[in-house]
Amino acid sequence: MNTCPILPDVQASKPAVPISLTRVGVTDVKKLVRVQKDGKKPIVLTGIFDIFVDLPSDRKGANLSRNFEAIDETLNKIFELPTYHIEDLCSDVAENLLERHEYAKHAEVRMKSEYVLKKKAPASKIAGHQFVDIFAEAVAERNDVNGTDISVKKMIGAEVTGITACPCAQSIMTETAEKELLNLGVDEKTVQLFLQRVPMATHNQRGRGIISIKTADTKHISLSTIIEIIEESMSSNIFEVLKRADEKIVVEKAHRNPKFVEDCVRTMAQKVIEKFPDISDDSIVTIKQINEESIHKHNAFAERVTTIGEIKEELNNNSN
Amino acid sequence: MNTCPILPDVQASKPAVPISLTRVGVTDVKKLVRVQKDGKKPIVLTGIFDIFVDLPSDRKGANLSRNFEAIDETLNKIFELPTYHIEDLCSDVAENLLERHEYAKHAEVRMKSEYVLKKKAPASKIAGHQFVDIFAEAVAERNDVNGTDISVKKMIGAEVTGITACPCAQSIMTETAEKELLNLGVDEKTVQLFLQRVPMATHNQRGRGIISIKTADTKHISLSTIIEIIEESMSSNIFEVLKRADEKIVVEKAHRNPKFVEDCVRTMAQKVIEKFPDISDDSIVTIKQINEESIHKHNAFAERVTTIGEIKEELNNNSN
Amino acid sequence: MNTCPILPDVQASKPAVPISLTRVGVTDVKKLVRVQKDGKKPIVLTGIFDIFVDLPSDRKGANLSRNFEAIDETLNKIFELPTYHIEDLCSDVAENLLERHEYAKHAEVRMKSEYVLKKKAPASKIAGHQFVDIFAEAVAERNDVNGTDISVKKMIGAEVTGITACPCAQSIMTETAEKELLNLGVDEKTVQLFLQRVPMATHNQRGRGIISIKTADTKHISLSTIIEIIEESMSSNIFEVLKRADEKIVVEKAHRNPKFVEDCVRTMAQKVIEKFPDISDDSIVTIKQINEESIHKHNAFAERVTTIGEIKEELNNNSN
Amino acid sequence: MNTCPILPDVQASKPAVPISLTRVGVTDVKKLVRVQKDGKKPIVLTGIFDIFVDLPSDRKGANLSRNFEAIDETLNKIFELPTYHIEDLCSDVAENLLERHEYAKHAEVRMKSEYVLKKKAPASKIAGHQFVDIFAEAVAERNDVNGTDISVKKMIGAEVTGITACPCAQSIMTETAEKELLNLGVDEKTVQLFLQRVPMATHNQRGRGIISIKTADTKHISLSTIIEIIEESMSSNIFEVLKRADEKIVVEKAHRNPKFVEDCVRTMAQKVIEKFPDISDDSIVTIKQINEESIHKHNAFAERVTTIGEIKEELNNNSN
Repeated sequence: MNTCPILPDVQASKPAVPISLTRVGVTDVKKLVRVQKDGKKPIVLTGIFDIFVDLPSDRKGANLSRNFEAIDETLNKIFELPTYHIEDLCSDVAENLLERHEYAKHAEVRMKSEYVLKKKAPASKIAGHQFVDIFAEAVAERNDVNGTDISVKKMIGAEVTGITACPCAQSIMTETAEKELLNLGVDEKTVQLFLQRVPMATHNQRGRGIISIKTADTKHISLSTIIEIIEESMSSNIFEVLKRADEKIVVEKAHRNPKFVEDCVRTMAQKVIEKFPDISDDSIVTIKQINEESIHKHNAFAERVTTIGEIKEELNNNSN
Repeated sequence: MNTCPILPDVQASKPAVPISLTRVGVTDVKKLVRVQKDGKKPIVLTGIFDIFVDLPSDRKGANLSRNFEAIDETLNKIFELPTYHIEDLCSDVAENLLERHEYAKHAEVRMKSEYVLKKKAPASKIAGHQFVDIFAEAVAERNDVNGTDISVKKMIGAEVTGITACPCAQSIMTETAEKELLNLGVDEKTVQLFLQRVPMATHNQRGRGIISIKTADTKHISLSTIIEIIEESMSSNIFEVLKRADEKIVVEKAHRNPKFVEDCVRTMAQKVIEKFPDISDDSIVTIKQINEESIHKHNAFAERVTTIGEIKEELNNNSN
Repeated sequence: MNTCPILPDVQASKPAVPISLTRVGVTDVKKLVRVQKDGKKPIVLTGIFDIFVDLPSDRKGANLSRNFEAIDETLNKIFELPTYHIEDLCSDVAENLLERHEYAKHAEVRMKSEYVLKKKAPASKIAGHQFVDIFAEAVAERNDVNGTDISVKKMIGAEVTGITACPCAQSIMTETAEKELLNLGVDEKTVQLFLQRVPMATHNQRGRGIISIKTADTKHISLSTIIEIIEESMSSNIFEVLKRADEKIVVEKAHRNPKFVEDCVRTMAQKVIEKFPDISDDSIVTIKQINEESIHKHNAFAERVTTIGEIKEELNNNSN
Repeated sequence: MNTCPILPDVQASKPAVPISLTRVGVTDVKKLVRVQKDGKKPIVLTGIFDIFVDLPSDRKGANLSRNFEAIDETLNKIFELPTYHIEDLCSDVAENLLERHEYAKHAEVRMKSEYVLKKKAPASKIAGHQFVDIFAEAVAERNDVNGTDISVKKMIGAEVTGITACPCAQSIMTETAEKELLNLGVDEKTVQLFLQRVPMATHNQRGRGIISIKTADTKHISLSTIIEIIEESMSSNIFEVLKRADEKIVVEKAHRNPKFVEDCVRTMAQKVIEKFPDISDDSIVTIKQINEESIHKHNAFAERVTTIGEIKEELNNNSN
């Protein structure tokens, strides 16, 4: 799909270099998208889309009039039809592309957006907006020559910011506190009780957790559940507005729950299995954690890319 | 590899969730890197590194004291040893990581940087700096239990900016010019001669071409050749300073050589085969072109991801 | 305004270094903002806010409980109250801040967002979304000791992307075409007629025009008019979807209307005076044009920062 | 300065809209710059330049051949001549521009770059690279009609990343620890001694401090001193590699030295006066602190923009 409406015979002609292309299309197309959940008031998102088809080696270019009509029709339909699931939206565009491009065997649609949740501070209950990065993708493949048999894989995911506190620096500070208290004549038992009740200092920072799940399943994967899993896998979730009592809760929670990047990814992996028991074993899950280390200029990073089945197997094997 | 130097027994202990991790490490580590070519004066690049090892399911964390020593030693060695090949530099770090982390089976090092070429304007011969984005990667895999048998795959690539002129809008403008000249009474033959000599207007824009090649071959793949291939596959290369005579050459060249994103990718693919005849057939090549369309706010995009062998086969099959 | 709800007596205490601060506050606060125009359906924007007050030299910190209540109350009100004018929204927050912070003499609120227009392609009339960057600012100053006399200056502006075609390269190409036609025996008069009817090639590229107007006037400055002025001052406006006939119109229009960055800024300045005849002479206008040169990796830039009165005077003086 | 070498008579002609322009030029020009300090080995920086002149209302465009020669000559000279002071480099380009553009009264050159320091971890003394953002600017004004009297103002500055710990959340946690220890039967005096020796937890994060100084003074302002001031004004400086003993020092130091954004800016202001006693009172100083709050998604911000004389006066008046 070049961006020009050239004459059909030019497009159908053989290209100078007879090589097929994996993806041809447009990127960074911004569109308003209206989504809706169970009869609730619809909300409007700004979607940024990448839209591709493949191109065989014997075609110079994609059929542009058809192609742009396809994209536009589907995106307009999306804009008018209330939908909750952004991955279905990607899937509809991908299937529409294959219908219109008889020569394409593969269509791919990616979308990213920002989702807004209302969230209340833990003590004061002051409400604030929480902006979360969300994204979806659909890949449609034509399985037969005539092209009526199409299979689709859909991906959905989110990136959420929270706070992570370092277990290592905390263990150093706890050791220091222990020694000082013993030096000051406080007895061992009191020292241990105190250190259980009050978590000691450590460096902490913004952490970003990312989960995406790619599956051929038709059942919807809840984006809210993905967002919850990410938030609950860091040392604490964070808020827009915090009063004194709220700030105490967040800082204490983060320090009672120190986490390496490794810990965050492993916790997310475990929770994905718990919260989504029905996803097919061959679905692919990508889980990442990036900590914007406050004591360094670089970031700490951990990642697991695997199938749902693999994680289940590892958890089973290793729990014995 | 968490970023904290915790006690060895803590790291070697079993994690709460016994799941292995694909990549654990640090990202966005900036380092000065000195590179040198055949006895020429060394140049200093700023490298931005991502450095990872995998982690088995029975280890809480990576051995940090060893780990940071490994990274630091290798990067310091890189800084002191003249090297031309940035992919070898990544490979050295990756192998060093595997040596020090007896539990890791996989190490991965990515580097991106900016490379500066001196380039002369086509007519005036005024010299200017051309900044090109370059990147490399190495993945080291341990093949046996004892860990002395390590295989490495290296990747190298570049992104270069040039100008692309749209063939479609040009064909429309050429048609318009043809009609006007015939209307004004100019004879058909003169019209055709004129249109062969003077290319008509079209929209044109900054285009970005990207090539990366990933291989297990030990022979070096020339970065300068990759940069040349990308430049020569767009409508024209571009320059820092252009005098009147230079500008005429660049604008004419671009308009005599209009290219869709599809054309740029196909030309790059063909030239990769021509210029690198010795790369193994199973090497993976990724070729992309992004045009920052001057008539749209979105970009046009084409991509081919495949093996060297596949491209050769397509070229052979389709040339018959 | 530090971000912590510390004890009031701590905040009111003298700081260790008794120096006043120009701006204290929060940046990159994302909020949903509902705006509405003359009984039309309200639209929801994502606003990114920077919110500041000044701090006298004898106060350690800003009164945080009051401060966050102020911000939150105003922003919540904004979210619930339909408003069309984003600069009024900034102004309301700024005045609210001064009411709550008895020690502050200066409050400043900046907002940026994205505005979506429906726009039809020139020939096919296919509708597309046009995303435009918009921004506003309000500065509230307390004029008296008691603090009931507050004066406010508001700023509003937009950045719009279009296409600019270079007049210089076009004059070179026109000269070339002229010579070739004369060489081919076409008579001078026919050549001139042809060159009047068909614009010759040149390099063209994405251009970005920016206008902001800062005034103490209470009358609203139309954002749509600002957007129109910017679009009409480049070689051509651009569209999301273009069919063959549309593309011909855009490319021809851009080539009939070549513009340097200087020309774009001067045209915008003239149009601002024409379209906003009532803005006070002491209002400050900033006009910029950035061309993402397709023949270079760097950008071309022109800017005028002055008062409305100055532009009027220059236009009057120089037209004589 | 448009980017095209059009015919001189075209440029010298009157523009369609007779309005003068504040800045015309090029932005994002990348150049290699070699700098040197007192006979030490020269280092090479990548400078990103913005270069402008003003344009009178009666000139259509800037004289391009002259203009590009001016830029190029000066930048090439910079590349060849060892220089330590990047603000002098900007100043040389600005003066050269005024010499060549007889119609311009104002020339402005901005440069940003990255500077690398070798820095040792506090305990292990492991050396690492510290990358710091640096920037400079020069504005040259022609004071007379003939243009031989030129005055120049130069600006120099840096942005450094460190760690800031929140004093407010720490006071909450200290209160909590105090209560728990008293509850556990530890006597008041021991509690106070303990809390003096071991700093309690708080949220902490990456902070970015920025100082720039603009002056007509000819004496050089040390960039290293600016970088030191910024580092010492946060809770702690940070490092590339930290071993266990280093990490203890950094985390303890940050927690013994909690700082609001307000505190960081005030400390920087005081240190600028102490370390640069000779800068003229009318020099303008801009001091900013941005904390990437780990408990919020937004940033905390404080800024002071004023003259050196004003800060001195405030410090004198308020110390009485």
